[in-house]
Amino acid sequence: MIIVGERLNSSRTPVFQALNRKYEKYLLDEALKQERAGANYIDLNAATLLEQEVSRLKWAIPLLQKKLAIPLSIDTPNSEAMEEGLKIHKGKALLNSLSGENRRIKAFLPLIKKYQPRVIILCLDDRGIPQSSDQALAIAEKMLSLLCKEGINVEDIFVDPLVRPVGTDSRAGKLFMESLQKIKKNLPEVKTIAGISNISFGLPRRKLLNRTFLILAIQKGLDAAILDPLDKEIISSSYSVQTLLGKDSAIKNYLGYIRQKK
Amino acid sequence: MIIVGERLNSSRTPVFQALNRKYEKYLLDEALKQERAGANYIDLNAATLLEQEVSRLKWAIPLLQKKLAIPLSIDTPNSEAMEEGLKIHKGKALLNSLSGENRRIKAFLPLIKKYQPRVIILCLDDRGIPQSSDQALAIAEKMLSLLCKEGINVEDIFVDPLVRPVGTDSRAGKLFMESLQKIKKNLPEVKTIAGISNISFGLPRRKLLNRTFLILAIQKGLDAAILDPLDKEIISSSYSVQTLLGKDSAIKNYLGYIRQKK
Repeated sequence: MIIVGERLNSSRTPVFQALNRKYEKYLLDEALKQERAGANYIDLNAATLLEQEVSRLKWAIPLLQKKLAIPLSIDTPNSEAMEEGLKIHKGKALLNSLSGENRRIKAFLPLIKKYQPRVIILCLDDRGIPQSSDQALAIAEKMLSLLCKEGINVEDIFVDPLVRPVGTDSRAGKLFMESLQKIKKNLPEVKTIAGISNISFGLPRRKLLNRTFLILAIQKGLDAAILDPLDKEIISSSYSVQTLLGKDSAIKNYLGYIRQKK
Repeated sequence: MIIVGERLNSSRTPVFQALNRKYEKYLLDEALKQERAGANYIDLNAATLLEQEVSRLKWAIPLLQKKLAIPLSIDTPNSEAMEEGLKIHKGKALLNSLSGENRRIKAFLPLIKKYQPRVIILCLDDRGIPQSSDQALAIAEKMLSLLCKEGINVEDIFVDPLVRPVGTDSRAGKLFMESLQKIKKNLPEVKTIAGISNISFGLPRRKLLNRTFLILAIQKGLDAAILDPLDKEIISSSYSVQTLLGKDSAIKNYLGYIRQKK
């Protein structure tokens, strides 16, 4: 399981404040804790800083990269901020995210061509949220072929079938699983990814729903997840699924994780 | 999800002692707590009492049935004990369990014909533990047709694909899921059941593995589970799966459960 650590998101008040007031220590601590907990990427979202977004990315990215061994996921719908981020990021960043919306394609495709980052494709287009797994697959296929034309390797592409809150549409979880399964079957060469915590928005006991959702998604073949790696129960759940599905030969990883946690 | 409460098992020391020394209060408390926690059946296993098994079932079954609104699952490989149990149990008991082993068939089939209980078929025969999902399915099919000949309704039959500890065979979880899926597909009219806690035998953090396994099995269509209904996290997990798979319209059951638990 590839983990994108979600904690450095400016929709969280302490992160907003750290970015706004340039609290180096807080930002670095949050990033390093996630790396130590097993994250493969650190998501960085400064979008709520609005006109300060670009300047704060310029400040935060070199700061974080000085200490981190893993790359960042640059998380913004703003093309100016995305360009600044990709320009100053050393090594391959993860672009979070391209979608099938025309405006987004026009703004991000030239950046993708220029900086050759890894890319998350969000299954969403100008018709809005897909209402069926076929529609999600069609968006994924279209965007995948656009990216390949820009020279992006298929191994560098992650498709996100789109996680919507089950609290606002009780079919959201089911539709996600169907879309994931269809994408895995028809596009076996790309990786799949999901923003896990979206599923539980507005409901009580979010962590319970998040980890249950992750378990279900891993069984359907999910390759990567955007989540909070400091949530020990979601990480334990991920190890236990691997064990239960026979992907952890001799239960080595599970036992190693449980022992190390003690 | 149909729940068979597993706590009244004489392999647990306090249950052994309660049966041995006829501690009415302990036995009733354990049963009633499970019923209140949502159990649909209470499993009763007195097998470790050996020559006292029959006499203790004769004592315990009427005692429990005086207070319980739900039926018992009579859990023994001993045909004499099974006959006593079925004879004194009021209403339809659950026979736990028939298997494809010849000795078991010979001993239990006449009792099934006579008392018409609900029946668990364990996918196991004289060749031992099935090594493939096809073998598990073949046992289920054979036993199902035997039971139907004895006048048992298909709605009264539960097939257990057999849960073995993943700690002794790392493929055990995967084989279970494949067998479950094959049985669901080929015998959609029977219910499926599993003894969840067997999966984690001998490993640390058993409850984590148990609830993860239950979540995975429900996604594959499991209808019933033998488990500890007092384990709040496994019950919460079961509610959350229903919500995430769109089987809890308007999230009513999940919200009701979470509120009531507080």
